[in-house]
Amino acid sequence: MKILLINGPNLNNLGKRDTGIYGNTTLPVIVAAVKKRAKELKVQVADYQSNVEGDLIDFIQDESASADAIIINPGAFTHYAYALRDALVDADKPIAEVHLSNVYSREDFRHKSVIAPIAVGQIAGFGWRGYIAALELLVDRAKNNK
Amino acid sequence: MKILLINGPNLNNLGKRDTGIYGNTTLPVIVAAVKKRAKELKVQVADYQSNVEGDLIDFIQDESASADAIIINPGAFTHYAYALRDALVDADKPIAEVHLSNVYSREDFRHKSVIAPIAVGQIAGFGWRGYIAALELLVDRAKNNK
Amino acid sequence: MKILLINGPNLNNLGKRDTGIYGNTTLPVIVAAVKKRAKELKVQVADYQSNVEGDLIDFIQDESASADAIIINPGAFTHYAYALRDALVDADKPIAEVHLSNVYSREDFRHKSVIAPIAVGQIAGFGWRGYIAALELLVDRAKNNK
Amino acid sequence: MKILLINGPNLNNLGKRDTGIYGNTTLPVIVAAVKKRAKELKVQVADYQSNVEGDLIDFIQDESASADAIIINPGAFTHYAYALRDALVDADKPIAEVHLSNVYSREDFRHKSVIAPIAVGQIAGFGWRGYIAALELLVDRAKNNK
Amino acid sequence: MKILLINGPNLNNLGKRDTGIYGNTTLPVIVAAVKKRAKELKVQVADYQSNVEGDLIDFIQDESASADAIIINPGAFTHYAYALRDALVDADKPIAEVHLSNVYSREDFRHKSVIAPIAVGQIAGFGWRGYIAALELLVDRAKNNK
Amino acid sequence: MKILLINGPNLNNLGKRDTGIYGNTTLPVIVAAVKKRAKELKVQVADYQSNVEGDLIDFIQDESASADAIIINPGAFTHYAYALRDALVDADKPIAEVHLSNVYSREDFRHKSVIAPIAVGQIAGFGWRGYIAALELLVDRAKNNK
Amino acid sequence: MKILLINGPNLNNLGKRDTGIYGNTTLPVIVAAVKKRAKELKVQVADYQSNVEGDLIDFIQDESASADAIIINPGAFTHYAYALRDALVDADKPIAEVHLSNVYSREDFRHKSVIAPIAVGQIAGFGWRGYIAALELLVDRAKNNK
Amino acid sequence: MKILLINGPNLNNLGKRDTGIYGNTTLPVIVAAVKKRAKELKVQVADYQSNVEGDLIDFIQDESASADAIIINPGAFTHYAYALRDALVDADKPIAEVHLSNVYSREDFRHKSVIAPIAVGQIAGFGWRGYIAALELLVDRAKNNK
Amino acid sequence: MKILLINGPNLNNLGKRDTGIYGNTTLPVIVAAVKKRAKELKVQVADYQSNVEGDLIDFIQDESASADAIIINPGAFTHYAYALRDALVDADKPIAEVHLSNVYSREDFRHKSVIAPIAVGQIAGFGWRGYIAALELLVDRAKNNK
Amino acid sequence: MKILLINGPNLNNLGKRDTGIYGNTTLPVIVAAVKKRAKELKVQVADYQSNVEGDLIDFIQDESASADAIIINPGAFTHYAYALRDALVDADKPIAEVHLSNVYSREDFRHKSVIAPIAVGQIAGFGWRGYIAALELLVDRAKNNK
Amino acid sequence: MKILLINGPNLNNLGKRDTGIYGNTTLPVIVAAVKKRAKELKVQVADYQSNVEGDLIDFIQDESASADAIIINPGAFTHYAYALRDALVDADKPIAEVHLSNVYSREDFRHKSVIAPIAVGQIAGFGWRGYIAALELLVDRAKNNK
Amino acid sequence: MKILLINGPNLNNLGKRDTGIYGNTTLPVIVAAVKKRAKELKVQVADYQSNVEGDLIDFIQDESASADAIIINPGAFTHYAYALRDALVDADKPIAEVHLSNVYSREDFRHKSVIAPIAVGQIAGFGWRGYIAALELLVDRAKNNK
Repeated sequence: MKILLINGPNLNNLGKRDTGIYGNTTLPVIVAAVKKRAKELKVQVADYQSNVEGDLIDFIQDESASADAIIINPGAFTHYAYALRDALVDADKPIAEVHLSNVYSREDFRHKSVIAPIAVGQIAGFGWRGYIAALELLVDRAKNNK
Repeated sequence: MKILLINGPNLNNLGKRDTGIYGNTTLPVIVAAVKKRAKELKVQVADYQSNVEGDLIDFIQDESASADAIIINPGAFTHYAYALRDALVDADKPIAEVHLSNVYSREDFRHKSVIAPIAVGQIAGFGWRGYIAALELLVDRAKNNK
Repeated sequence: MKILLINGPNLNNLGKRDTGIYGNTTLPVIVAAVKKRAKELKVQVADYQSNVEGDLIDFIQDESASADAIIINPGAFTHYAYALRDALVDADKPIAEVHLSNVYSREDFRHKSVIAPIAVGQIAGFGWRGYIAALELLVDRAKNNK
Repeated sequence: MKILLINGPNLNNLGKRDTGIYGNTTLPVIVAAVKKRAKELKVQVADYQSNVEGDLIDFIQDESASADAIIINPGAFTHYAYALRDALVDADKPIAEVHLSNVYSREDFRHKSVIAPIAVGQIAGFGWRGYIAALELLVDRAKNNK
Repeated sequence: MKILLINGPNLNNLGKRDTGIYGNTTLPVIVAAVKKRAKELKVQVADYQSNVEGDLIDFIQDESASADAIIINPGAFTHYAYALRDALVDADKPIAEVHLSNVYSREDFRHKSVIAPIAVGQIAGFGWRGYIAALELLVDRAKNNK
Repeated sequence: MKILLINGPNLNNLGKRDTGIYGNTTLPVIVAAVKKRAKELKVQVADYQSNVEGDLIDFIQDESASADAIIINPGAFTHYAYALRDALVDADKPIAEVHLSNVYSREDFRHKSVIAPIAVGQIAGFGWRGYIAALELLVDRAKNNK
Repeated sequence: MKILLINGPNLNNLGKRDTGIYGNTTLPVIVAAVKKRAKELKVQVADYQSNVEGDLIDFIQDESASADAIIINPGAFTHYAYALRDALVDADKPIAEVHLSNVYSREDFRHKSVIAPIAVGQIAGFGWRGYIAALELLVDRAKNNK
Repeated sequence: MKILLINGPNLNNLGKRDTGIYGNTTLPVIVAAVKKRAKELKVQVADYQSNVEGDLIDFIQDESASADAIIINPGAFTHYAYALRDALVDADKPIAEVHLSNVYSREDFRHKSVIAPIAVGQIAGFGWRGYIAALELLVDRAKNNK
Repeated sequence: MKILLINGPNLNNLGKRDTGIYGNTTLPVIVAAVKKRAKELKVQVADYQSNVEGDLIDFIQDESASADAIIINPGAFTHYAYALRDALVDADKPIAEVHLSNVYSREDFRHKSVIAPIAVGQIAGFGWRGYIAALELLVDRAKNNK
Repeated sequence: MKILLINGPNLNNLGKRDTGIYGNTTLPVIVAAVKKRAKELKVQVADYQSNVEGDLIDFIQDESASADAIIINPGAFTHYAYALRDALVDADKPIAEVHLSNVYSREDFRHKSVIAPIAVGQIAGFGWRGYIAALELLVDRAKNNK
Repeated sequence: MKILLINGPNLNNLGKRDTGIYGNTTLPVIVAAVKKRAKELKVQVADYQSNVEGDLIDFIQDESASADAIIINPGAFTHYAYALRDALVDADKPIAEVHLSNVYSREDFRHKSVIAPIAVGQIAGFGWRGYIAALELLVDRAKNNK
Repeated sequence: MKILLINGPNLNNLGKRDTGIYGNTTLPVIVAAVKKRAKELKVQVADYQSNVEGDLIDFIQDESASADAIIINPGAFTHYAYALRDALVDADKPIAEVHLSNVYSREDFRHKSVIAPIAVGQIAGFGWRGYIAALELLVDRAKNNK
């Protein structure tokens, strides 16, 4: 089993961004933690981060055929990136949407996700551990044939 | 550590409700699974289900002082039960909001949660395993002093 | 054939409520009239009234398996009780929504029913006779295999 | 007692229109059924159908003075024909609004009726039998002096 | 100088319509009054009334080339008849919109005119005398080259 | 019979304001024209202009008891001056609202009048002659006992 | 004279709830203070609190016939409990709506009361003393025959 | 293959309407051009224009059974004629919606088409040549079995 | 202790305004009653009324430094006078907003107060006695150090 | 004559994307077909596809000076890419907006195009042949000097 | 060159108002600073402040003919004073709108300016120095003939 | 002191874009002017322009740590680029938002800035000189310790 781990804009900046909101774990540390857990679950992880919507789309187009599921934290693209959404729909794989912070207790514009309606589910507000949970839940889901 | 596991209206009906949406695991089975995992994590679980908003409020008022965190699937109360929200605010404990289905791919009225803004986070769309993830995430969070 | 006859909040007060709007027939008289007509049609009726949304849900959960259809006047729950709606969806029986008054000529909040989209149909504005019509229409519908 | 039975646009096409939504009874058969029941109730029925809003208005202007009540299925005019509404207000007779399908479980634009606020009541979703019920309810209402 | 005097739906019913709102002068009497005043002003008047939007459009298309201005009471078409509006725009003559009643103190839907933005001006709430004023104002306006 | 002629903000500037919109007649000339026509109709006119909402209210409070009707062009106060509206309601006299320009073909904010719902009627778009028409219509109305 | 003193959800928790918002006086202390003042005014008080909307309705149905006025703090039910509103309308007594906190300086959802339109008046933001003021105002009002 | 070519209100006026917007080709010329191209494609065309919504519905009801596709320019009916939409739905043929002008760069009310959601597609802004393109595209589509 | 008693537009007209809504007590009588009660409570009162928003602002700027609290009935300025609101914010004293009538059962525009979010609290619907209650509540509040 | 043929995000994926919606022709095949037809019309075509909004802008800035018209399918950028819109406005050439699917019968967010108001016209719902039609219409338009 | 420097409500209170938001420079100091800079630029400045909308209008009407440009900080009038806007439009001079604070990071009602659409430009958030910048920019603009 | 000077999409096109709106100064000329003035103020300027949102984010992430303030003209990204906003928030430096044109007098979509709420302030409508003013204001602000 292979999972794409995709991070959107500004997530490369974790550890430097407002740590009260996002925690102080850096993205490489998170990716490593996800890969470690994935290894335990005998799952392969291909990770990618970009601040460019179109580059995320390119990655999804290139890699999704060989993948079984997608974990994505779309950052602020969550709220308007319909082209990213289309790429995820085209990928036609189970998607877990992850947010580090609880988007529902922040600014109004963060309450609407254009990705959520096409995902399997969403995990928000539990910091970097949300990625691990997403991984485990997607794997469980796959094992149990949904 | 002690966690309240609260289920709102119609969740006592799981297994009978539309299984394409909610899965066919019954609530007692879910509660047992949560308790089993809790035991492994050395966490106590007090569970409660009711179809009456006021009864859920009574339970939260009575039990939250002795608890460290709350897992709640508010069912359809998610979308309008401001009194339940107030009770959860008063409880002043970390709250994980769980939904079996992906509320964001269903009817419009399910896209708005009056509970989410006061929760730590939300897990939606991963069926009953979402409860287990919520338990693990709340425990992790507590261990790491947030 | 068995039909559930469910009345929501404040309908136990009929005859005392504003008679210009609701008429002066009491609920027991209405229930008796429905049962009399049901007997003629060889249909069984189980009736229930409560001011508590959760109690209505309990009744629906307990009784709907043995019933063939539901007549419900949800009173003011019509406009916000999504948990009641979910219980009715779970019941998976044909539903007739009845209102004594013409809700569309009253306050704005009465113009939206959260129940209507999941009912077979709605009868509003014809006073207590609307219940009789609902009974006859549900029976006709059942006889004609829809 | 005399009742006007008015059908709006596309209802002349019943039996050919999507039968999953509207049933496969034709309009002449419905009108005949209403007239048969009316005869039993010693009520006269004058029926009219048109696809032209203005022609429906003409009919109402010409015939309402001699009528005691109106049954109308305004078809899609339900949602925007304020001139038809004005004609019905001018007629100053009790009005029953009938819809074959449950307009509340269809497209958004069908959820709003510009006729409903000026009618006595509405019957929707019970197919052609809704006309019969409307007839009986209007007659009952007249007999009981409302 | 020639003026078209156009009346929309239900205005043929004046005198019979709610006289508290519309007054009890009939349309022929109003038309005669307008023509009498027009004669004094040496203006020709061609009048037309229809309950059919398309017929009003036909009249405007046929007659506007030979006319210098238009007085129109669009009745309830005021609020939605964009095709009528297009016909009036095509006519390319000064238009006075007249309403017998004060539409701004009545139902919400009457507060919006789709005709007003393309008219020279509007007179509302002064009963049938509003037509006379409209006539005088259009004539004055023409004489003074606007 | 006595009529108050009230002009709101910036109307003292007529003749200097955009003449394409408001015409090039000055306010004193308009007031004189209204008074001349009033004299012919044996009506007394008391006129007032101010750019201060509160001063207009003072004038209405002081003068309305002795007046029989009010002609008001509230200028831009039309769109938000609820205190002015309250003063006009308190005056309890028939009110004619006049606008020089067609407010419905200008900016969106000009489409809503907070005065119109409490007036007898409105004349808009016919320049200064609208005042004369308002005077004549109010006088006619008074003579005919409405 | 007899007054019903009704408190909605979470108000039994006063003294424990966020004291910065609600003060630290408990509900029994407030009820005692109201009853003490009532005794001075020779008014009887029957008090009730519940977290269940339906139970509040039951209390109102049972007790309002023998009461002369109602003081109610509906808690968060203020914002959506239309069935509670209907029960209060049915009671047909003068109602004073009380809020401990200034609901207008808190979350958006607290700005709308479904109870206020059917009350005599509202007192908000003055803590528990608002109940005393409500009592005095209702008594004054009754003495002065409104 | 047979195609209905339907034109709505005011399109009979082409060549006289604002030629900056609609071009100066008349409707007969357009119809002739479509028929000429149709002949080349061995397609029959039945054309109809009316300013009356109901007459367009009549035509569609009468002619659609024998037709294979529909080209319609609904004129201003585009924006509100739900009855026309219902007739087109009932016809159950592929529909091409044509507009001479680019409705999206004109008034707000022209941005919403009630027809578009039930059409195969839309061509707007290319003047009378849009009809020819619509014809070719519908024919291509039919030949290629969609 | 010193309190400012401020009354906005049209309140100088009390006793003459619609007495069904505002009661028939005049403003001088109300001011006298407030001052009498204030004397009993050993509180000084400085009162002011104006129909001019800017004059109310001037008064607040001049007098608030020497005052301990403000009672204000902003009249219709309640709904739009943001400059008045700013003056009250600048004053930085506890504010009680008073309305004679229940604004929530009147026109829609009266449901929104731009003052309420910056006040301590609001009393509405209890006529002139609401001022007395406001005085007592502000004094109580001050005595108890909030 | 030279035309730019621009395709936005995910259109490089045609043939793999949901073929029920987009058809199964790949983008190179479409581009080839457009170029073939262009050659027949003696028109040059420069084509470009990118998933990056900024790259599309770069292409437009670089190439539009030498081009006579633009055919663009902006993919999901249609709905929010105002920067792309600005680039197209700056290009100052006639633009044809093409969509493969009928965006008006899909999700709500697809009903609004930020590009349409600045285009000459739009062709939607006719699959890849829409590009050919756009080419022909732009060429015709140019030949006929609009 | 002569510039009007106009300050709206509560700006006379600068230095006393919340200094965290508005800074602690008083209005006379600001005016002096603007005049000093103006002198350097050989520009005359006429300044005015009022809390009364109508007085600001009077000033603009009286002074704008002799002025070349206007700097205005409309205070809270920014958000609703359409009469002030009309006066500024009538003045027909280049207008710079200045705000001390960043209105876009404050309450919602401050996000909308009714003045901005008719100004040359806006400077917000840079404290009193914004006035100096406005002066320099207006002078530059004038020198460069825009 | 070091300032980032960032320009968003299409600003590289200045001088070629609609000069009536944007002026005819090119971006290199503007950047040179800003740098010249910066040199006088002993401030370093690092400038960057891109049409790609993600590239702007990259630049901000790379350069903001070494900078003291940011001047940004986000072009059309102003209205939807929440990811760019997040990058600016993360940078945690004072930001001046500059627009060449008065965005408030142009299309509706330009009236909302997603950047403004997180900026220190905004300068709009004064052409390229707005950049110079922004520079001076940021430097002043820094010197004066805000």
